[in-house]
Amino acid sequence: MPHIRVPEKLPGIRGLMAFRPEVVGPLNGLVDVLLRSSEGISPGERELIATYVSSLNDCFYCQTTHGAVAAAHLDGNEDVVLKVKREYLNAPISEKLKSLLAIAALVQKGGKCVTADAVEKARKEGATDLEIHDTVLIAAAFCMYNRYVDGLDTWTHRDTELYRSRGAQVARMGYTQANLELAKSIPS
Amino acid sequence: MPHIRVPEKLPGIRGLMAFRPEVVGPLNGLVDVLLRSSEGISPGERELIATYVSSLNDCFYCQTTHGAVAAAHLDGNEDVVLKVKREYLNAPISEKLKSLLAIAALVQKGGKCVTADAVEKARKEGATDLEIHDTVLIAAAFCMYNRYVDGLDTWTHRDTELYRSRGAQVARMGYTQANLELAKSIPS
Repeated sequence: MPHIRVPEKLPGIRGLMAFRPEVVGPLNGLVDVLLRSSEGISPGERELIATYVSSLNDCFYCQTTHGAVAAAHLDGNEDVVLKVKREYLNAPISEKLKSLLAIAALVQKGGKCVTADAVEKARKEGATDLEIHDTVLIAAAFCMYNRYVDGLDTWTHRDTELYRSRGAQVARMGYTQANLELAKSIPS
Repeated sequence: MPHIRVPEKLPGIRGLMAFRPEVVGPLNGLVDVLLRSSEGISPGERELIATYVSSLNDCFYCQTTHGAVAAAHLDGNEDVVLKVKREYLNAPISEKLKSLLAIAALVQKGGKCVTADAVEKARKEGATDLEIHDTVLIAAAFCMYNRYVDGLDTWTHRDTELYRSRGAQVARMGYTQANLELAKSIPS
């Protein structure tokens, strides 16, 4: 049971957003910038970084939600999502993305853990300043979202198919718009 | 030297925001909701939570910036800010705020570290669902801001007076507005 009284049947962050609507704009706005940009790393790769950090933080809701969005961006390839979570060095992804996932893992430990060597390695694999910046902020942001969702002990469902259909919707229309669509479908 | 090339002479998160202006709206919007609301805990108390979490994450820029905003809200009382960082149980603050700082410290460790007991204790001290919610999200958000600022190894100044005057300005006009004022004063 969640630590606070949130509307029933709204899983994870969605129940919290219904409880405190003032935070919806900034929280959805941030992921819309960070996860849907296609400057450098693609939306699918950005979602993989978010999924990986959420798995390091052991947040079921976020890693499953963003894993489903990642798979939707990557032609339904759920296998690559699993591999990134389990052993990304052997996943079928670019060397550049592997070097960015290494930076993300350091951010998850703490800001001061990011080394000049890790950044240099990413640069050698072709990462730009913007890709390094976005990787650090995606990883930092999921250290927030994961703590928000689990810190209030939110409920979530376990039905993979629901995550899959929601992931496809978010990949198509983005977080802000998908949330508006969802709000329309819930009886008031 | 920062890990990426950000505009010179802009300390901490401000250099990063100048580098990636698309994130400014959501990042400032979030602190404007979380730190300037006066529902339940006051803006000064909210800034104390942000300062305390930033000190746990050892982020000099954030703990000094938000410590200065907290002091500005609290009639210039810098002593209470120091005491909250060093030993909040003996600080001249309410028992309710102490119980919320205990929750914030658990969130800083990880979302799953927050216990029903800690939440129950806060409730016994009079904390509402909204205050518990906002405490968790403030703590989670500063786990993001701190990692963003330190993960990219940003530069910052050490002049206490600069933090003091900036803190007073933010306490007066809020983050979004203070940033706009600041942008006007920087020659392009």
